[in-house]
Amino acid sequence: MKNRTDLALESSEFVNGKELGGVRKKEKRSDKTLVTEIEIISDEASKRIGKPKGRYVTVEMTELSCDSELVDDRLFSLKAELERLIPGGDGAVLVAGIGNEEITPDALGPECMKSVFPTRHIDSQLASDIGFDGLRPVCALATGVLGQTGIETGEIIKSVVDSVKPVAVILVDALASSSLKRLGKTVQITDAGITPGSGVGNARKEISERTLGVPVIAIGVPTVVDADTISSGEEADSGDMMVTPREIDVIIHRAARLVALALNCALQPEIDPEILLSVV
Amino acid sequence: MKNRTDLALESSEFVNGKELGGVRKKEKRSDKTLVTEIEIISDEASKRIGKPKGRYVTVEMTELSCDSELVDDRLFSLKAELERLIPGGDGAVLVAGIGNEEITPDALGPECMKSVFPTRHIDSQLASDIGFDGLRPVCALATGVLGQTGIETGEIIKSVVDSVKPVAVILVDALASSSLKRLGKTVQITDAGITPGSGVGNARKEISERTLGVPVIAIGVPTVVDADTISSGEEADSGDMMVTPREIDVIIHRAARLVALALNCALQPEIDPEILLSVV
Amino acid sequence: MKNRTDLALESSEFVNGKELGGVRKKEKRSDKTLVTEIEIISDEASKRIGKPKGRYVTVEMTELSCDSELVDDRLFSLKAELERLIPGGDGAVLVAGIGNEEITPDALGPECMKSVFPTRHIDSQLASDIGFDGLRPVCALATGVLGQTGIETGEIIKSVVDSVKPVAVILVDALASSSLKRLGKTVQITDAGITPGSGVGNARKEISERTLGVPVIAIGVPTVVDADTISSGEEADSGDMMVTPREIDVIIHRAARLVALALNCALQPEIDPEILLSVV
Amino acid sequence: MKNRTDLALESSEFVNGKELGGVRKKEKRSDKTLVTEIEIISDEASKRIGKPKGRYVTVEMTELSCDSELVDDRLFSLKAELERLIPGGDGAVLVAGIGNEEITPDALGPECMKSVFPTRHIDSQLASDIGFDGLRPVCALATGVLGQTGIETGEIIKSVVDSVKPVAVILVDALASSSLKRLGKTVQITDAGITPGSGVGNARKEISERTLGVPVIAIGVPTVVDADTISSGEEADSGDMMVTPREIDVIIHRAARLVALALNCALQPEIDPEILLSVV
Repeated sequence: MKNRTDLALESSEFVNGKELGGVRKKEKRSDKTLVTEIEIISDEASKRIGKPKGRYVTVEMTELSCDSELVDDRLFSLKAELERLIPGGDGAVLVAGIGNEEITPDALGPECMKSVFPTRHIDSQLASDIGFDGLRPVCALATGVLGQTGIETGEIIKSVVDSVKPVAVILVDALASSSLKRLGKTVQITDAGITPGSGVGNARKEISERTLGVPVIAIGVPTVVDADTISSGEEADSGDMMVTPREIDVIIHRAARLVALALNCALQPEIDPEILLSVV
Repeated sequence: MKNRTDLALESSEFVNGKELGGVRKKEKRSDKTLVTEIEIISDEASKRIGKPKGRYVTVEMTELSCDSELVDDRLFSLKAELERLIPGGDGAVLVAGIGNEEITPDALGPECMKSVFPTRHIDSQLASDIGFDGLRPVCALATGVLGQTGIETGEIIKSVVDSVKPVAVILVDALASSSLKRLGKTVQITDAGITPGSGVGNARKEISERTLGVPVIAIGVPTVVDADTISSGEEADSGDMMVTPREIDVIIHRAARLVALALNCALQPEIDPEILLSVV
Repeated sequence: MKNRTDLALESSEFVNGKELGGVRKKEKRSDKTLVTEIEIISDEASKRIGKPKGRYVTVEMTELSCDSELVDDRLFSLKAELERLIPGGDGAVLVAGIGNEEITPDALGPECMKSVFPTRHIDSQLASDIGFDGLRPVCALATGVLGQTGIETGEIIKSVVDSVKPVAVILVDALASSSLKRLGKTVQITDAGITPGSGVGNARKEISERTLGVPVIAIGVPTVVDADTISSGEEADSGDMMVTPREIDVIIHRAARLVALALNCALQPEIDPEILLSVV
Repeated sequence: MKNRTDLALESSEFVNGKELGGVRKKEKRSDKTLVTEIEIISDEASKRIGKPKGRYVTVEMTELSCDSELVDDRLFSLKAELERLIPGGDGAVLVAGIGNEEITPDALGPECMKSVFPTRHIDSQLASDIGFDGLRPVCALATGVLGQTGIETGEIIKSVVDSVKPVAVILVDALASSSLKRLGKTVQITDAGITPGSGVGNARKEISERTLGVPVIAIGVPTVVDADTISSGEEADSGDMMVTPREIDVIIHRAARLVALALNCALQPEIDPEILLSVV
């Protein structure tokens, strides 16, 4: 495929015009967001689109929130979509930030972990005493990448899952898009799992319900367009190049905060978002 | 004990004057280092000194190396002591950087992981092709701290040990000293394991050969003196205060680089230190 | 004086018990702040207290604001005190962040400059078009320190003042306190100018209305206690040591944001604080 | 011009094929570098190439140095070219790092200032005492950008020049190239001055011998290709996009260190490069 993308929304558009059997698509619009849900049902559609079967919810925003405007329509839209995909109840949840914090456009996952509210170590009596009744146990782990650790991301997560025994795993990762205009403004949520590094040409082991044994929800924000998606007309090794907005550092920071707060709200529905915002 | 310290060298000095039964002590001096090995043999000595039984090697330097002077006597002295404690052979080794990278004096462990050379994922044929014959498999993991992850440091390490099955675990951590003059200039290496957070008053679960099932080597550099070790004469909550050198950011960076390079050299004895220095 | 401090509030307390001729002192209390204004009137009082003549307003808070709670009583209290000291009107103002951004407790000034809203380059027609009528021209400069630049802080500021010709200069700097309990929770505002480095034992050239020719307002937050203020009982070079809270990185970030937003509000009284918060 | 570039070497190639009157071009090759000097002599050639008259020395390397290999052919080649352009003698030199440290590919200038050795404040007697006889006075200033300070970069530099009165000004800045393969591997040195921001479409005031009154040497490393230089085939606002290598953070760090050390060597010819490397 010429136009490499991690967004099912884009992949499915490339096969547009053809009969889209095996795919269901729904749209809903709020004040500042457009939410599109694509469900890939048949093996044939999965193969044609190049994505595993499952649900892919894409939340497109006019622009990303900033620190002082986190609590608005964008947050509540993301929260609502997350709540639909994350198993409810009070079972422990493991959130894993994937990616390399030393490469700015890949740092979304680790940066997001700085604002996810870990609660598994908070004694329930203590939680109750400080007015946090019914706190759901949450773990937050920045996994690093294979080149930093020597361990596959999926292997680290599997190890911790075996020990922590969460009822669901949530992955946060930076994505590649084929479109400049979606960078930093779109969030994809899927229950189909991911294959880290597949977005940048080097596929690692799949991380999914199939490999971990519990539901896996992956949240991603596109932060780069591969340079060879754009025709460079040059014989250089553009495979190591990326196209990214000039203000990428700010975008990563804002997207990481937004995703983290939406997660905190979806995981702790009984606590006021403003209070969650103040603890992380 | 009034003078809280993570250094066995200091703890054993506090009981000085008394009979030091159950403790062996040796010193050797090189150009820029003084190496003291203390072995706590008896349960009674362990209790009196307040440290688990085991070997504690303290490498004291006149000053820490800088980037342009890494390969000298200090490095080789550290390397030699590490080689004596780390099991030899070609079995996999897991290096874990402990501590909070967002609190400067506690960031030694995570900072060090940036320069440890992970090799477990490098195919031996590829390694051989690029002249790295006999590369020992090494993993490097920054574990985060309980308040960031919701998971005990020891639990994360145990999980990964169960999966990676290393022949030894090496921990890197910042320590507290009771002496201002040792900050940033001393490295302690021990086979007695550690209890993360014990140095700052909140003990977590022990991480040791007993809990992990493989030899555990802990490497630490003192970066703070607790404010209540120094008599503050004030009724404030000095327990949350620390005394640290003004240039702590530089010290952490240099100490992390030095420890990482010494580890890389000790773990890959067949590779030239200058080459190891250029790959991380 | 044994207890070194940059806070006039503390200096004047040390001479307590004696007759405090030449000093006026007023207190007012709000919900979350205690504001004390000390005016040193006579040369004799100046000499006795060890501070230049002038007004020193100290705003003490129960705790520093966090990102999600910036707009409250603490902000408005700071804003009100700043408005009393900063010359009104629409003349240009130069804000200078003093200190070394690579030494965490000294990074308050440079960190604060990241959130001060510079406006001098914004065309008034453009400002009006986007609803920012009556924007006062503001410049924001992180000066670095002598060891980084080879130029005295005061010389850089004087150079820029000669070119920009502001009606007032505002300095933001980290201070030393003699009390652990004031670190990160107190803001001092003074019209008496400062002598950079005097707080850490190496006095540089004075920066004041006398040397710059326009009113100089200095804003400072204590972030360290000198280690020799606390009796260390050790012969080490504690002059290079400091006592600082463990969470100093967070404190610097919050204090810098609070001071910056209070400045933005005081300098642009016609613009809604919430909007100012969203532009920086 | 379709192919926007800050490199005179590339600009002059675009007009290739035509008669290159008014331009002199010389090449010399060393072990790891290719040095090309282009001199634009006539107004007509200046207009045709789109660069001011002057000398443009381009040092192309097979790859950038890393920390452990700084002192080699690349360094000495850069040093030699700098020495040919920087006025000799012992007059003070002002080095200014231009660009925005918060936008990674634009951070070359400020990052470089962290390693330039400032000496103007070092007393000559003290310098002599520590074996640094004949130290030339050097100042190093990170100017920030207009959006951060509200002051034109050229205005800040002019202010400081009026006060410090250096015999030459050296500017360090990130550049745009039209070629992916030159990113991070090429250094341009010119005596023709610069116009900050011209490389990214928003020209600010010229900074040159004409505006400052002393010789101005500009040193630049290309770190981005504008996204519209590459044909994007998309209607998005690619003007805010850039193409940059994935490892841009590492490249900026290495290039900044290399340029700084070459400058330190060229400005302090009597001091051993290894010693200069250890002081910054």
